[in-house]
Amino acid sequence: MNFRIIAYIVGWVCNFQAIFMVLPCITALVYQEHEFFAFLISMILCLIAGIPLTARKPKNKVFYTKDGCVAVALSWLALCIFGSVPFVLSGSIPHPIDAFFETVSGFTTTGSSILTDVEVLPHCILMWRSFTHWIGGMGVLVFLLSLLPLAGGYHMNLMKAESPGPSVSKLVPKVQQTAKILYSIYIGMTFLQIVLLLIGNIPLFDTLCIAFGTAGTGGFGIRNDSMGSYSTYCQIVTTIFMILFGVNFSAYYLILTKKIRQALKFEEVRYYFGIIAAAVLVIGLNTMHLFQNLGVSIQQAAFQVGSIITTTGFSSADFNQWPALSKTILVLLMFVGACAGSTGGGIKVSRILILCKAARKEFQLYLHPNAVKKIKMDQKTITHDILRSTNIYLTLYLLIFAVSILLVSLDNFDMTTNFTAVTATLNNIGPGLEIVGPMGNFSSFSYFSKCILIFDMLAGRLEIFPLLLLFFKGTWKKF
Amino acid sequence: MNFRIIAYIVGWVCNFQAIFMVLPCITALVYQEHEFFAFLISMILCLIAGIPLTARKPKNKVFYTKDGCVAVALSWLALCIFGSVPFVLSGSIPHPIDAFFETVSGFTTTGSSILTDVEVLPHCILMWRSFTHWIGGMGVLVFLLSLLPLAGGYHMNLMKAESPGPSVSKLVPKVQQTAKILYSIYIGMTFLQIVLLLIGNIPLFDTLCIAFGTAGTGGFGIRNDSMGSYSTYCQIVTTIFMILFGVNFSAYYLILTKKIRQALKFEEVRYYFGIIAAAVLVIGLNTMHLFQNLGVSIQQAAFQVGSIITTTGFSSADFNQWPALSKTILVLLMFVGACAGSTGGGIKVSRILILCKAARKEFQLYLHPNAVKKIKMDQKTITHDILRSTNIYLTLYLLIFAVSILLVSLDNFDMTTNFTAVTATLNNIGPGLEIVGPMGNFSSFSYFSKCILIFDMLAGRLEIFPLLLLFFKGTWKKF
Repeated sequence: MNFRIIAYIVGWVCNFQAIFMVLPCITALVYQEHEFFAFLISMILCLIAGIPLTARKPKNKVFYTKDGCVAVALSWLALCIFGSVPFVLSGSIPHPIDAFFETVSGFTTTGSSILTDVEVLPHCILMWRSFTHWIGGMGVLVFLLSLLPLAGGYHMNLMKAESPGPSVSKLVPKVQQTAKILYSIYIGMTFLQIVLLLIGNIPLFDTLCIAFGTAGTGGFGIRNDSMGSYSTYCQIVTTIFMILFGVNFSAYYLILTKKIRQALKFEEVRYYFGIIAAAVLVIGLNTMHLFQNLGVSIQQAAFQVGSIITTTGFSSADFNQWPALSKTILVLLMFVGACAGSTGGGIKVSRILILCKAARKEFQLYLHPNAVKKIKMDQKTITHDILRSTNIYLTLYLLIFAVSILLVSLDNFDMTTNFTAVTATLNNIGPGLEIVGPMGNFSSFSYFSKCILIFDMLAGRLEIFPLLLLFFKGTWKKF
Repeated sequence: MNFRIIAYIVGWVCNFQAIFMVLPCITALVYQEHEFFAFLISMILCLIAGIPLTARKPKNKVFYTKDGCVAVALSWLALCIFGSVPFVLSGSIPHPIDAFFETVSGFTTTGSSILTDVEVLPHCILMWRSFTHWIGGMGVLVFLLSLLPLAGGYHMNLMKAESPGPSVSKLVPKVQQTAKILYSIYIGMTFLQIVLLLIGNIPLFDTLCIAFGTAGTGGFGIRNDSMGSYSTYCQIVTTIFMILFGVNFSAYYLILTKKIRQALKFEEVRYYFGIIAAAVLVIGLNTMHLFQNLGVSIQQAAFQVGSIITTTGFSSADFNQWPALSKTILVLLMFVGACAGSTGGGIKVSRILILCKAARKEFQLYLHPNAVKKIKMDQKTITHDILRSTNIYLTLYLLIFAVSILLVSLDNFDMTTNFTAVTATLNNIGPGLEIVGPMGNFSSFSYFSKCILIFDMLAGRLEIFPLLLLFFKGTWKKF
């Protein structure tokens, strides 16, 4: 284990965290809120931790996959710990575990909240909550990679550990260049959404918060009814952008480099849109009687489906009250999740595709025992390694799911609440059903359960391996 | 596809079905019930179908895995169709889909019932319901193999397709001999339970029904409160035997051949008992306040845990009313299931072990990228084929689960009911929670949902592949 480099990376994350906090500071100044000082102190704390760690560039550049995973996991822990300081210092969320829950929920782009009333919070706190989504969405280490003059083989190991999906491909041969392209697309799309929302007469503050929540597929609302009281125009723009941010960013790169035909053939993206279309249609018809108008029910269905499959978690209607079929579709979509290489969470469409293709192959083997068949996606063969790690991912996912439900059930809530609370956090969605439904929140859980759900949110965002590696004794051996 | 042999096998299953019906016929004669004629007509129908198909021994002996699967799936369909005739003819369950549901639930050893009041049923019908569990438990084709003078390579393909677990091993080199040993142990243990129940002053009729339900890990009760009103002695005997019938029968063979040390080292069986002990302890403590006595609560916990993990489905208490932790443990045990090579259903302890070992190996690969590690169980290496088919099984299991819940949700019941109804049928357990809880039943579902649940019960018992193969066009090609 290369502790020096890991400390160096974590140190940079702390420094960047200080820079990120400039935005809420400005917000506090604009709205003349005294929480400014909470952010100022937090920034200083970040720098106190960060500057000594980054003072000297490490010489030993040996950096394995394992080191990449540990660096990512520890960076995220540091990010969330320092990120929660302003909540505590400002008194907005006095209890440290609650504040940590809210911050983890922010950075992991989950959007589950322990707050019962967000409208009483000062602007700078709301801005920080939403901004954590934006930082966590594309990944803080990808951000770091795009800016830092790091050298050596550890770029790819960091990127692999932080980016979602069964396999991470570089868009261009250089990792740093790839990171830059990804962030350029990310910033460009966020900017476009901001402009479109401003055209719709949404105040700038709301616009920024909504755009950050959408881009990171996070879902913290700044009103108690989430997006319910915004105009239909605003809801439609948000629907479109939620769905767009759930697309594999490689597709956008292909479009930008004018390989449009290739982009349209992207298997994962086609299935992603197919699933969305089918779900919107069925839910639209199933909830028509509630809205008394097919147009409205389709629009509401599209918002909820887009929000859930991309694991954003905004809501414009209380789907807790919808018929069982619609609720079941939404719960199933919670597991599907968005595309790999997007800002969304969940199991990911590509993983499900890979698993289904492997199953289909098995049946072909029954029919033609001697045939040699390979599993392909986008005309490329899925290697044995990717298939294996996808299978292992599924196993671990189910194990964590089962253990979490078991531990959370100590709180003695109903089964649906427990089940969807774990679903909503492990898939980084936000709301579940019943007590944790779109109009509810996570405040009634015990601190023990909140810790379990914090673990689930981190495991979901980092796709399990990096986080679990921290618990292996072998990980901490020097060599 | 060798249609001739498949027809020959299905024909023999029909003939045996006629013989099986002798037991309810005798019961009807003893209790002088006019339902005797319903069974008589059913027997004649079975023979009309069976005798022509078995008149000539097929010459072409080419028989692939695929043929084995199709033969097993069609045999089970024939078994369930003819098995439901007496219910319809006698008027006990007038609607054919209801009768088919009840019969499939019987043969697949599920124990889910659409009947609201079983105590009004005549003795012969109750006996038939329970006897179907016994026939389905060890498998009708294993029974056939142990008796029929079949020749050629298709023994093993039939046994593989019908026996539960990731891999089927012969106890002795000859398949027919293995089948005979399995049935001898099965009959011996059933007999032992009958004797012990009779000692406890349980009437012979009740004894037989309870023993058949226990041995097959089925769970049809003959009283409306299942096992609730039987004596503690009877409940304890049943608890012990439920757990014993969930053990891999290979362990018993090892004990019989005096390889006791080897039997004690059986990894799957050790984990199986470990899980049971832990679950009983936690539930016992968690429900102590309900029974006001730790002894009683442990006894009740043991009954329910034994019943659920072995997927029997008897109940001696309404666990729907238990605290969330206990309910959650029971629901998780529904998925775990019993050992491979037992009469129980579910995913099976060995599959979960294999998956966990594969996951642990993956972490070791992270720590030592160049190490060559193999997954072992009972000192034997798990082959790549077994691991692959275990993974595919998990994928298909989850897919069927998701689609079933989606389709069943059309009935607009609450999520817990839908979720546990599918869980209880796909894992061949019997009761779920809420509407389908231990004191409820499946009568309120629509016929469409009942058909979905029938599919799930068959898919669960035949472990998915044989049943799904029927839906592939390629399966039905002549060569």
